[in-house]
Amino acid sequence: MAQTRRQFLQQVGITGGAGVLYSTMSALGLTSVAETPAYAAPSRADLTGRGAKHIVVLGAGIAGLTSAYELLKAGYKVTLLEARNRPGGRNWTVRGGTVETDLAGNTQRATFSPGQYMNAGPARLPQHHVTLEYCRELGVAIEPFVNQNADAYLYREGSTALSNKAIRHRTAKADVYGYVAELLATATDQGALDGRLTAADKEALIGFLGSFGSIGNKAAGFAYTGTDGRRGYTVEPGAGLEGGTTAPPYALSDVFASGVGNYFSFEFGWDQAMMMFQPVGGMDRIPYAFERAIGKDKIRYGAEVTGLKNTGSGVEVTYKDGTRTRMITADYAICTLPPHLAAKVPSNLPAPIIEALKYARPTNAGKIGIEYGRRWWEEDHKIYGGITNSSLDTVNTWYPSYNFHGERGTVIGYYNTGANANAYGALTPAARLERALMQGAKMHGDVYTKDVKAAFSVNWLGTKYSEASWVSWPSQTDGIYARLLDATGNIYFAGDHLSHVIAWQHGAITSARATVTALHDRVVASR
Amino acid sequence: MAQTRRQFLQQVGITGGAGVLYSTMSALGLTSVAETPAYAAPSRADLTGRGAKHIVVLGAGIAGLTSAYELLKAGYKVTLLEARNRPGGRNWTVRGGTVETDLAGNTQRATFSPGQYMNAGPARLPQHHVTLEYCRELGVAIEPFVNQNADAYLYREGSTALSNKAIRHRTAKADVYGYVAELLATATDQGALDGRLTAADKEALIGFLGSFGSIGNKAAGFAYTGTDGRRGYTVEPGAGLEGGTTAPPYALSDVFASGVGNYFSFEFGWDQAMMMFQPVGGMDRIPYAFERAIGKDKIRYGAEVTGLKNTGSGVEVTYKDGTRTRMITADYAICTLPPHLAAKVPSNLPAPIIEALKYARPTNAGKIGIEYGRRWWEEDHKIYGGITNSSLDTVNTWYPSYNFHGERGTVIGYYNTGANANAYGALTPAARLERALMQGAKMHGDVYTKDVKAAFSVNWLGTKYSEASWVSWPSQTDGIYARLLDATGNIYFAGDHLSHVIAWQHGAITSARATVTALHDRVVASR
Repeated sequence: MAQTRRQFLQQVGITGGAGVLYSTMSALGLTSVAETPAYAAPSRADLTGRGAKHIVVLGAGIAGLTSAYELLKAGYKVTLLEARNRPGGRNWTVRGGTVETDLAGNTQRATFSPGQYMNAGPARLPQHHVTLEYCRELGVAIEPFVNQNADAYLYREGSTALSNKAIRHRTAKADVYGYVAELLATATDQGALDGRLTAADKEALIGFLGSFGSIGNKAAGFAYTGTDGRRGYTVEPGAGLEGGTTAPPYALSDVFASGVGNYFSFEFGWDQAMMMFQPVGGMDRIPYAFERAIGKDKIRYGAEVTGLKNTGSGVEVTYKDGTRTRMITADYAICTLPPHLAAKVPSNLPAPIIEALKYARPTNAGKIGIEYGRRWWEEDHKIYGGITNSSLDTVNTWYPSYNFHGERGTVIGYYNTGANANAYGALTPAARLERALMQGAKMHGDVYTKDVKAAFSVNWLGTKYSEASWVSWPSQTDGIYARLLDATGNIYFAGDHLSHVIAWQHGAITSARATVTALHDRVVASR
Repeated sequence: MAQTRRQFLQQVGITGGAGVLYSTMSALGLTSVAETPAYAAPSRADLTGRGAKHIVVLGAGIAGLTSAYELLKAGYKVTLLEARNRPGGRNWTVRGGTVETDLAGNTQRATFSPGQYMNAGPARLPQHHVTLEYCRELGVAIEPFVNQNADAYLYREGSTALSNKAIRHRTAKADVYGYVAELLATATDQGALDGRLTAADKEALIGFLGSFGSIGNKAAGFAYTGTDGRRGYTVEPGAGLEGGTTAPPYALSDVFASGVGNYFSFEFGWDQAMMMFQPVGGMDRIPYAFERAIGKDKIRYGAEVTGLKNTGSGVEVTYKDGTRTRMITADYAICTLPPHLAAKVPSNLPAPIIEALKYARPTNAGKIGIEYGRRWWEEDHKIYGGITNSSLDTVNTWYPSYNFHGERGTVIGYYNTGANANAYGALTPAARLERALMQGAKMHGDVYTKDVKAAFSVNWLGTKYSEASWVSWPSQTDGIYARLLDATGNIYFAGDHLSHVIAWQHGAITSARATVTALHDRVVASR
């Protein structure tokens, strides 16, 4: 047994366990430190002396892969069924050679150059997500993902002096913060907040505002003049006597009316604040690393589930394998299919469970990858990665976070959701590109339309086996959603949709861990 | 001639020129866009039909290397004299095997593991610095340098609830911005700023503050409650019903009194705002790439300048080469030595020039690299790169921006300047480490003192051939500094000190370009 365990550990390449608690930080008494919910991987020792239970896992997305991986570590027998011919589900990296036909019948064949790719689904990993722990454990190399860049642009349509042109994030931030500081210092100094602030508070606050907004002192009326270079230069400081030339700030009314400040809070978010990371070479390095650790022999690709049944002693799953229908029996099933698709699978699940599955609301997101023959955003605009955010229907433009200074590069021309994603999704891939180029040129000039080498777009609502970018729930506290958190007979559910971290791999992993733990506890209790 | 030019271009690996203007952006009419001062490399064609002038360059730091490189491109004959046995000057990467004896007689021999290094001098490159253009031109691979991280700490000594413990940047930012928003929305709504704001301004401002501070609406008194997760969780959102648990924000008085907000503006700076970059493998990849492009045969290492003279027809430079004194004559000299050291070189420079050289004020900076056997900041603290800033004398702790998830890692235990740098510099290297570990443990716990594999510290004021981290000028506009911007006879000066971008390689490069341009124009005019 010890030998078998050692062999298994070698096979899956495990030298340490994911889910270690932040004991050091607790010991320090640090507050405001997040703790990943504690996870104790099922223990092989618990199962000593009994036959291995067989678990069939439906879906080889991140939840299914995590479930299979953790169960195999504990000594369970596992079979993974996956309709696609690759692991990962929505974790999908498109490279040259990728072929996909969507539900509307559009077939795209990606012609990206070697080394160029787009992450069609998840693309970024916060430092505190357990996804990074699996990267470490599975040997997936990581590198920074540029989620914030002072030199990327904000673009807002409108009628202000800042509207309808590309404004650097740094410029917008300097002007917004400058005026905020000027206004609050003035009101504070004039006693408008004396009901809230002591004399000491006022002094400390005005001191902070001085550096925060780079404003003048009281004698200077706390005025924001924008001369410290923070907002950018028209001529950079340089050699000799060149101290730099600045342009005056935009007028206060224009700054706030333009709406450029309304994007700032994105960068403060729990899941979005820098630093962020990505696997080197594409997000699908994660599912492929899981596949290696699990063993390809345990995964049946091209297996589309057509039936799911609780039996007296276990479960019975039928699936189509090309034109043939096959059946597999097991002790338990973990269903990680998207809930709105799982609801359509013929089953003997009780009506309240079907109702709960149908309670999920599919959301759409769209992305287009555009490969250029030259990295003009670096060479001409001095933008090395990051996001340009706009009020156009493209919403977000991502400059690539890999291959800096390389010959070619692949920009994400739009990453949008909801109605904007639906609008692009309704177009043919060629028309999506045409529209994306037109919108991008408004922000970047004609260079945006030139030297395009390849493009590929995804419309998640129309993507087979997903039919959504993610789902939302009308409520996660009214008891309907909660029906899916416990086993129904021998059938369990898992997926990012069964978490409070929907649309992130972290949600899929923590849900899978919770499900695996519940299943294991039941097996152990049944001794 | 054409053949020679082609051969030369092949030799130095040049396929495009640095210094291209941002023509695309001008065409777009973008405002607030920095432009690197225009630079037209000296043209070889200008020199057709005359003998090549010989330039001796004093110092193979970035200014000297840039001067030599640009002059060689134009067909000049160049000799570089460098006192050290390596190129780069203050651009210095310490690796295992590096040996250095400082002016106080401390000898350190670095024992960092293979792949581990510290950049003792410059360590980060903003996107808009021409240094990156030379990286592209010279084939130096780059990767992100993490200059900002929401999960790194702020540590302030004091007597508030936030004092004497490590506070995540994200927590400090959420609380500071939350209260700023609450206060300004309240004052605005109550009419305290009606003299400055129109009704439309007030509505737009309050709308912005809602997202900026994540505060309640008017009915909720614009209250900041810190419940959106931005400041961190005590229990992260996770599977099933785990929506995350937050701790209440720190009290307003404590937040402002603590001073945690006073660091924020660092991240808005023209030269410091993310994104920032570093060469893969160490900053000295840049000087070594210059060395390759220039040709080692044109650089004399171990050559300490002992005399500098204008003669009727050119210049005469004497230098010590070990125990021997040598002399070199040339048409022109470019002196890139630190000004306070150049002032001490025996020369026939006129008194006003010596006075100008002496006008520079040396500044100190210190750094210590500490290699650990485990990347505990990533594993235990979930901090992947970035800066912890404190009121302790260590001031800045840098987590490494390379080899994420690797086995070992090298933390910069302090990066400080002025009096703090002098205090550490006065200690022995062993005592510096001891003190740095004690201070670091206050912020990170005992783990900071454990599993230390190697350490190396630099005290720039005591470092031979530099004797400063950089210099400052009492004034750059009173005419004294300006004396060094024109040639004195056949002697030119260059260096970051002769720019408004002091302490950055960008300053050294732009200064060198200005000097090379002036010299070339004179040669062409003398036809």
